[in-house]
Amino acid sequence: MASRAITACVLIIGNEILSGRTPDSNLNHIARTLGGWGIQLREARVIPDLEAEIVAALNETRPRYDYVFTTGGIGPTHDDITAEAVAKALGRPLATHLEIAERIRRRPAAPQVMASRLRMARVPQGAELIDNPTGPQGFCIGNLYVLAGIPGVMQAMLASLEGKLETGPLVRSRTVTAYLSESHVADALTEIQAEFQDMDLGSYPFFRDGRHGTSLVMRGVDEDRLDLALEAICRVIVDAGEEPQDIRRD
Amino acid sequence: MASRAITACVLIIGNEILSGRTPDSNLNHIARTLGGWGIQLREARVIPDLEAEIVAALNETRPRYDYVFTTGGIGPTHDDITAEAVAKALGRPLATHLEIAERIRRRPAAPQVMASRLRMARVPQGAELIDNPTGPQGFCIGNLYVLAGIPGVMQAMLASLEGKLETGPLVRSRTVTAYLSESHVADALTEIQAEFQDMDLGSYPFFRDGRHGTSLVMRGVDEDRLDLALEAICRVIVDAGEEPQDIRRD
Repeated sequence: MASRAITACVLIIGNEILSGRTPDSNLNHIARTLGGWGIQLREARVIPDLEAEIVAALNETRPRYDYVFTTGGIGPTHDDITAEAVAKALGRPLATHLEIAERIRRRPAAPQVMASRLRMARVPQGAELIDNPTGPQGFCIGNLYVLAGIPGVMQAMLASLEGKLETGPLVRSRTVTAYLSESHVADALTEIQAEFQDMDLGSYPFFRDGRHGTSLVMRGVDEDRLDLALEAICRVIVDAGEEPQDIRRD
Repeated sequence: MASRAITACVLIIGNEILSGRTPDSNLNHIARTLGGWGIQLREARVIPDLEAEIVAALNETRPRYDYVFTTGGIGPTHDDITAEAVAKALGRPLATHLEIAERIRRRPAAPQVMASRLRMARVPQGAELIDNPTGPQGFCIGNLYVLAGIPGVMQAMLASLEGKLETGPLVRSRTVTAYLSESHVADALTEIQAEFQDMDLGSYPFFRDGRHGTSLVMRGVDEDRLDLALEAICRVIVDAGEEPQDIRRD
């Protein structure tokens, strides 16, 4: 485990998300899975199925983060252009990956159908297989991890990476809720954030059962410091005449 | 209505989305709403509550798209920094917006609480109010539209913009489903996409009731051309020995 933070970005490649036809459900799963391993998701982008856009997003993000994950565009049809875009971004040719091709050939098909399927074995030269017991294969090359867009398939690919990526300290959190509007605690929160600069203090208002409330979330790697911040915030809530509720340590 | 496509980008500002604590539910609503008005969402980014990141994303995206919408970070607490970031991106000072301040003062509060709330009236000089009958106010300046992160509030703000933005031709779609794997139709789809370059033809595989299937979606502005493409795809499905199903014209 690295002592520094290990960071990641996700590129969600898909016209169907941008058009609103399909709600994305991959981002939250990836964020939680990576977080649980000690990899912090720092950015996500949804971009169209256009080669120039994918190449630009890959080249903007891959130097900035330890890992860049993509979802979508690795099937056998004309609109599946992620492998070509990754090859172009890296300045490498596409080449048939022998192991992926061998796995594709295991499921028999008519010659023309097989030829279409084998398109999925064309990956940037030097790419490695992301093993997926359930079927379609992803690949990785350098710090790029190319996953499927279908949630079930993407989740299987991501799960197969467990233990294989560099990870950093786990980010932990403390959450407390109070029926106070944000404005009632804003000044106190500013002071607490200034005192605990090693953590992020987030304030999320809600309206429930006819009452305004605020969820306060502290995130950081030092559990003792998180507990101190939680205590400080509970004092603020009590001083404001309310009860701290739903305290969670994650 | 403009004859050219009018484009948009959404910046979702929120550590809670990146940490996985909160699944985003705003992107899909914005994509569908803008699409229904004739504005095409072309990119979305999820970025952290860090001023430098917000400023960079604003300045990268605002020259590229007709409109940039942001969600999140406009409340009264220390982690609400969207207004400051927009001011910095545009090189303008923050100034108190008199109408927003007047609306905030309508709801009485203790002096310290009111002072926190009035933070929400500090917007970049020259910004205009995005009217929201339900409470908190967003603002717009140039082609930037700054909305709340709470879904209900964001939706009210967005709804208030109906009829006030420049719009282009509506993108229509045709959808047809068949119990065929993508590989069975890949070659034919490539030919149809080559013939209908004025539309996007997307292919989305699924696995349902133990069978592989594919949804085919055509998107474009010319309804007659969409119908021609739909006919061509239905012929491909019939030639492959299957039945076109769930045909939709949206």
